[in-house]
Amino acid sequence: MPLFSPHDQYVRVKQHCGELLSEVRKERPLVHHITNTVTINDCANITLAAGAAPVMAGAAEEAVEMAGIASSLVLNIGTLWPGQVDVMIIAGKAANERGIPVILDPVGVGATTLRTESALRILRECNVTILKGNEGEIGVLAGSGGTVRGVDSYGCSGDPVDVARRCAEVTGTVVAMTGEIDVVTGDGEVYLIRNGHPMMDRLSGTGCMAASLVGAFAAVASSPSKAAVAALAAFGRAGEIAAPGAAGPYSFRTGLFDALYSLSPEDLRDGTQVEIRRGI
Amino acid sequence: MPLFSPHDQYVRVKQHCGELLSEVRKERPLVHHITNTVTINDCANITLAAGAAPVMAGAAEEAVEMAGIASSLVLNIGTLWPGQVDVMIIAGKAANERGIPVILDPVGVGATTLRTESALRILRECNVTILKGNEGEIGVLAGSGGTVRGVDSYGCSGDPVDVARRCAEVTGTVVAMTGEIDVVTGDGEVYLIRNGHPMMDRLSGTGCMAASLVGAFAAVASSPSKAAVAALAAFGRAGEIAAPGAAGPYSFRTGLFDALYSLSPEDLRDGTQVEIRRGI
Amino acid sequence: MPLFSPHDQYVRVKQHCGELLSEVRKERPLVHHITNTVTINDCANITLAAGAAPVMAGAAEEAVEMAGIASSLVLNIGTLWPGQVDVMIIAGKAANERGIPVILDPVGVGATTLRTESALRILRECNVTILKGNEGEIGVLAGSGGTVRGVDSYGCSGDPVDVARRCAEVTGTVVAMTGEIDVVTGDGEVYLIRNGHPMMDRLSGTGCMAASLVGAFAAVASSPSKAAVAALAAFGRAGEIAAPGAAGPYSFRTGLFDALYSLSPEDLRDGTQVEIRRGI
Repeated sequence: MPLFSPHDQYVRVKQHCGELLSEVRKERPLVHHITNTVTINDCANITLAAGAAPVMAGAAEEAVEMAGIASSLVLNIGTLWPGQVDVMIIAGKAANERGIPVILDPVGVGATTLRTESALRILRECNVTILKGNEGEIGVLAGSGGTVRGVDSYGCSGDPVDVARRCAEVTGTVVAMTGEIDVVTGDGEVYLIRNGHPMMDRLSGTGCMAASLVGAFAAVASSPSKAAVAALAAFGRAGEIAAPGAAGPYSFRTGLFDALYSLSPEDLRDGTQVEIRRGI
Repeated sequence: MPLFSPHDQYVRVKQHCGELLSEVRKERPLVHHITNTVTINDCANITLAAGAAPVMAGAAEEAVEMAGIASSLVLNIGTLWPGQVDVMIIAGKAANERGIPVILDPVGVGATTLRTESALRILRECNVTILKGNEGEIGVLAGSGGTVRGVDSYGCSGDPVDVARRCAEVTGTVVAMTGEIDVVTGDGEVYLIRNGHPMMDRLSGTGCMAASLVGAFAAVASSPSKAAVAALAAFGRAGEIAAPGAAGPYSFRTGLFDALYSLSPEDLRDGTQVEIRRGI
Repeated sequence: MPLFSPHDQYVRVKQHCGELLSEVRKERPLVHHITNTVTINDCANITLAAGAAPVMAGAAEEAVEMAGIASSLVLNIGTLWPGQVDVMIIAGKAANERGIPVILDPVGVGATTLRTESALRILRECNVTILKGNEGEIGVLAGSGGTVRGVDSYGCSGDPVDVARRCAEVTGTVVAMTGEIDVVTGDGEVYLIRNGHPMMDRLSGTGCMAASLVGAFAAVASSPSKAAVAALAAFGRAGEIAAPGAAGPYSFRTGLFDALYSLSPEDLRDGTQVEIRRGI
């Protein structure tokens, strides 16, 4: 029996988003990335813009050591090279031993066998805390069907909330599924986040950047799902602030990073558009 | 004997440039890149800005599968790593089998033996549809002499139009040669495109971005040379629009991407500066 | 006994900074980079913005050839991959034979064993001309202690000027240590440079970009330490010009590159904030 009314809970989640942003800036957690070469610069800079500290290190020889000083680990399979999945698993296991959150962004899962098998192998061999994907990718990993062409989602089969729930069940992770409405589920509640702007789809790598932010927030949070909610709300809120002043994708990018950098905890608290549903 | 007067033909080419831009936005073709790590992000974003969908995937294990769902393939040898040319050739052959266009950007050919041999090997082992290079690179591949220092052109020996024609003959490709005036030739006519702005040389990777755009336009066109004309005209036109408002190379970059994103088919049709000469 | 008073010397150094910037633009030296995948695009573009020509080439097969046509070589260990240090050493030796300056940016030294050993191996096996690092990295390589978390400096043990001097002695290089105050030392004098802005720490890769600029200036200078002073002063001056108009890190980045591109030799001469102390 819930101690709080839905409205109370809603207010508490929004409040918590603002608190987590303050916490990221105060603690400045080190977010270790093993990631693709397309969006690696934007991922480093978005982590910085949130107030955390990025390190991008993919060498096998330093995977354990770097995971040993990091506060979270972000794995992104966007441009796999020989042996990269092995390094991800070494780092993932080291992160698991230290109890720091592991975020997986299964970029392009479903588009090629290599990507699907790589994501499944990582999920099998490490404990992934939060799985951040688009609707197509989460649909594929839920086993219920999703369409991914290249690295773009063409949607999942069925109701997105059901698909996210099923993926959370199947993979044993918290699922953070991005789309027109973001869905976070897996450790109790289901959260629907309505922040964001369509311009975010016109810029390469916003999905990767979202995963970096989930890594930054998860590093300072006790609840992975609430960290994901706060990260996606903050990113979406920055997009909402940036869009009106943008003349196209690159001025939007400039505005997006600047807005996240300047986002106040109060603005995030007030601007978070979240709906809470009974969980799995 | 031409059915149309030169003026009619000129009007038709300009009209066709606008139509191809509409087509790119309507079809949103998937452009598969195997490319360098310097400009990979800008190449993904310029493809998006034009209205197409980029995927950057260089793993051998997925080369055939990715080429199998793509609408064109862009190969760029800007930062070769061990085995990368092998992957390019595997993907190129898969693209050839499917009949989708293959674009080669022979970055830095002539500067080192590795680059020259890699480009020649790709040209020998796959059917390259369009070869996009600067004057130095095209001069080297024409066998008539060109000067490349690092990745910069210091020009070709002789008249650029003759050099482009000879390169098209020698390589059996459509040649799209960028320079103060761009030259496209190889399947009938010779096109000279006078769009663009000197600021484009002050930004790293504009040559790579041009190749990505040629890939996007070739994916929806029946004529490779007309696709290259439209792509180079669109890119040049965006540069012309962006330059007056730029305070330097990075505000120019922002403006360039925004201008391409906002470029209307009508503006491209009216703004294309093309001259047509009798072909080889 | 000095021939010039401290004030004369100060005026001469400032004058020399302006002259070197003119020289970079006149000679347009080719700066060969073997560098990381995070900041490689910004490093290419900052080199261009200064007026030099970047080439980023990491393949073993072309390391000697590329070093053979370059005017300086920048090595950066930010994202090591298998065999990359071997290529750096091959290129470094080729650069040494030709007598062109070699700049090492030991990114993240002290954070992991791989990074520390890689930097020490490069220092042992090639003649590094200028070692550019943050306080933590220089402290580690001085053997006097420095704290590096990921790729961020958390400072060195003791007085920064003493640490830079000691590092120059131990490594036999000119040391260019960035921080709130930059310190350059190693071939006579100690220079303290007070240009720059705190926003530079909010952008990923400003340390890497500083190394690229040191490479561009060292390519045209007879004195490595004066080249480093001019490069760091120019970069810091561009930051000072850009900061007031910036709304956050990405508009700052745009302004930084534009400001460096537009920086006049006179502005650099007048704006350089340098203090000269008796050297080691």
